[in-house]
Amino acid sequence: MSIIVQKYGGTSIGTIEKISSVADKIISEKNKGNDLVVVVSAMSGETNRLIDLAQSIDPDVSGRELDTLVSTGEQVTISLLALTLIKKGYNAISLTGPQAGIVTDSVFNKARILSINNSIIKKYLHKGMIVVVAGFQGITNDGDTTTLGRGGSDTSAVAISVALDANECQIYTDVDGVYTTDPRISPGAKKIDRITTEEMLELSSQGSKVLQPRAVEFAGKYDVGIRVLSAFEDGTGTLVKTENGEQMEKAIISGIAFNKDEAQLTIRGVPDQPGIASLILGPIADCNIDVDMIVQNVGEDGLANFTFTVPRNDYKEAKKSLEESSQKLNAKKVEGSDKIVKISMVGVGMRTHAGIASKMFAVLAENKINISMISTSEIKISIVTDEDNLEIAVNVLHKAFGLDR
Amino acid sequence: MSIIVQKYGGTSIGTIEKISSVADKIISEKNKGNDLVVVVSAMSGETNRLIDLAQSIDPDVSGRELDTLVSTGEQVTISLLALTLIKKGYNAISLTGPQAGIVTDSVFNKARILSINNSIIKKYLHKGMIVVVAGFQGITNDGDTTTLGRGGSDTSAVAISVALDANECQIYTDVDGVYTTDPRISPGAKKIDRITTEEMLELSSQGSKVLQPRAVEFAGKYDVGIRVLSAFEDGTGTLVKTENGEQMEKAIISGIAFNKDEAQLTIRGVPDQPGIASLILGPIADCNIDVDMIVQNVGEDGLANFTFTVPRNDYKEAKKSLEESSQKLNAKKVEGSDKIVKISMVGVGMRTHAGIASKMFAVLAENKINISMISTSEIKISIVTDEDNLEIAVNVLHKAFGLDR
Repeated sequence: MSIIVQKYGGTSIGTIEKISSVADKIISEKNKGNDLVVVVSAMSGETNRLIDLAQSIDPDVSGRELDTLVSTGEQVTISLLALTLIKKGYNAISLTGPQAGIVTDSVFNKARILSINNSIIKKYLHKGMIVVVAGFQGITNDGDTTTLGRGGSDTSAVAISVALDANECQIYTDVDGVYTTDPRISPGAKKIDRITTEEMLELSSQGSKVLQPRAVEFAGKYDVGIRVLSAFEDGTGTLVKTENGEQMEKAIISGIAFNKDEAQLTIRGVPDQPGIASLILGPIADCNIDVDMIVQNVGEDGLANFTFTVPRNDYKEAKKSLEESSQKLNAKKVEGSDKIVKISMVGVGMRTHAGIASKMFAVLAENKINISMISTSEIKISIVTDEDNLEIAVNVLHKAFGLDR
Repeated sequence: MSIIVQKYGGTSIGTIEKISSVADKIISEKNKGNDLVVVVSAMSGETNRLIDLAQSIDPDVSGRELDTLVSTGEQVTISLLALTLIKKGYNAISLTGPQAGIVTDSVFNKARILSINNSIIKKYLHKGMIVVVAGFQGITNDGDTTTLGRGGSDTSAVAISVALDANECQIYTDVDGVYTTDPRISPGAKKIDRITTEEMLELSSQGSKVLQPRAVEFAGKYDVGIRVLSAFEDGTGTLVKTENGEQMEKAIISGIAFNKDEAQLTIRGVPDQPGIASLILGPIADCNIDVDMIVQNVGEDGLANFTFTVPRNDYKEAKKSLEESSQKLNAKKVEGSDKIVKISMVGVGMRTHAGIASKMFAVLAENKINISMISTSEIKISIVTDEDNLEIAVNVLHKAFGLDR
C-alpha cells in the first residue's frame, strides 16, 4: 500500500463547496487503496483577516501571540474538511500541527521544522483513516504554537512526506503544473512533465510562484518526489524529483523565470580594496534589507563599480543608505532604478553544454535588449534589464532555446 | 499576594474596542498587586458562525471535529487580549485549554474537566505575567481538543480558581450582579449582595441566566467564592459563597427565577402500577428529550394522572411519543400546553421556616393565578402556570416575601 501526501492551498478550499470538491479528489485517491494524509492551508483570505485584527491592536505585531491567533485559520479548515469526508462516508480525523507532533524551533512567525513524531499520523493511517493535518504550523518543545511563515504549508507537506517515507507528495495549486515560463507572458509556454529538484529550486527562487523554495529545498535534501497538480482539473501535472544519476535525455534549458519585485543600485568609483564590499553592504544589512544579485567590476583608474539588487519595497531606504556610504567612501556617484526585471534561464543541461550564456546574450542583443547585470550559477543564468523588455525578452529566449517545441 | 481569576464572556469582548476596555479592567486589578488569570469566551457570534459552517456540511454535526473547529473561537480571543495587554505595556501570555493543561474526559461537545495541571499557569504567574486562558475547552489524555458545552467558560474559570486555590473568581457579565428576580419583569427587583452557592444553584437551574449551573455546582463542591460583576460598570456585584456554618441574618427567600422554555404534557387515566413511569418516560428519553418536572397523582378509579415538562422545542415530538404510549397503555387521554412558565422561589431560609409554600399558594390564589404543577426541594418551590400569568405572579410574590425591601 502506498502512502500519498496531498496538499491543498487556500484558494482550493475557500468555500464549503470547494472543500466538497477537494474531498471528492481525496476520496478518489483513497479508493485506489492508498493511505492518505492531506495537508491544508487556511481558507483564502482568512490569514489576512486575522493579521488585520492583530494589526488593529499593534501595527508592528509579531511573536508568540500572533502565531496562536493565525494558526486558528488552518484549524478551521482541517475540521471542516474532516467533517466533509466523514459526511461522505469516509473515516477521517483532523490534526493540528501540534497534535501531529510537528516540532519546530521557537522562532515565532517563521519557525523551522526540527522533527515530526510520525507515530501519531501512522496510528490513524493504520486504522484506515484519512488524516487531515494543518499546514504552516507546529509546536515548540515548550508547548508554544508556531507558524512557519508564508507558504509554509508546502514545507509542512514535504516534511510530513519525509517523516512518513511517503511514495509521493502531491501539491495541488491553481495551475496544472510547472511551465517553461509564465503562460500569461509567453503564450507558447509548455507544461513540463518532469523537472529536477535543483532546477525547480532555481525556478522558485528566481520568481516562479508555483512552489515555495523552502519546500523544494527540503524535498531535494531528503529525496522526496513532489507532484504539482491542479486542484480544479484532472491531469498528471509536473513531477519534481532529484535525478540520482538516472540517464535521461535532458533539455538544456528547463524553464525561464522572472522577478519584477527587485530594484537595482549602483555605486560608481569606489576604491578597489579589500573589505570594500562589506563597507557598502554592511549598512544595507543593518537596515534589514536583503541583497540578491551582487556584481563588482573594476572601472577606470583602479576604481570599482559595485551593483546589487534589493527588494523593490526597500529601494528608497537602500538608496539613502548607499548615498551616505558614498560620501564616507568618497565614491563618484550613486545610481539606481526600480523599474527593472530579473530574467533567469534554468537547466541542469547547462552544466555540460558550453555556449548557453553567449547564445542568450546574442539573442537578446539581436532584439536590442540591453543587459545591466549578469549573474550565473551552475544551472542558471540571470540577467537584469528594463522592466519594459520583459515580454519580448522572455518570448525570444523561450523560442530560441526550443521551449515551445 | 492574592490570586484573582477573572472571566469575561463573548459580549464583553465582541470587538477590538471592547477588548481594550476589558484590558483596562484587568490592568487595574493587576496594579493592585494581584496575580491575575483571565478566562475568556469567543467573541460574541463567533461560536454560532463556526457551528453554522459545520452545519452547512452536516446538519446533525457533532463529535471530535466540531470541537476542533469551535475551539478556534476562544483561541482568537486569548491571543487578541494578550496582544492588547502587551501593547499596553504589560507582560501577558495566552494559553489554549490544552496548553493550560485542562484535562477533560472524551465526551466531545460536552466534556467534563477531570484535572488541571496548575504548574503551567503558576510558572507564568511567578514570572509576573498576566495569564489569559481560553475558556470552554480542554484536552483529553489522548491529545484531542474538547469543549465543555455552552456556557462552559464559567466552569473553566471556577475550575482554574480551584486548581490555583485562588482568592476570588470574578465572573464579568452584562449585568451588575444577581437580582431577586428579573428586573425586566419586576421593576422592584433588588441586587443581592451575597447569596449562598446552594441558592444560586437553584436560581441558575430554575432559569436565572447569570451563571451556569455547572459552574455554581463546581464552586460549591470546592468552596470557591464567585463574584458576579458587570463588565461595563463599576460596582461590588454579588458574592456567591457557601456559608460554612456562618451565622448570618438570612432572608427566607433570596430570589425568584422563571423559565419560559418549557412545555407541559399530561397523560390521564393510566393504570397505577409499578413501572408505569418508565413505560411513559422511556420512549421520551429514547427520543433524546430531557424531562424536568414530573408529577404523578392518583385520580378516579385507581387510575393515575401523570404530568411532566419538556423543553418547548421538543414539545411536538414528545406529544407524539406520548400519544403512542397512551394507545399502548390504554390511557384515557393526552393533554398539553407549550404556553406555560415555571416560577421558582429559592432560599436557604425555607429549611427552617414552615409555611412558605402555603403562603406562596395563598398569594397566587388571591391574585387568581391557577397552578397546574407544583414541585419542591429543600430550598426551592416551583410552580407551573400559564405564560400569561408570569408578570403578575412574579410581582406579587416578590412583594409578598419582602424582596423589594
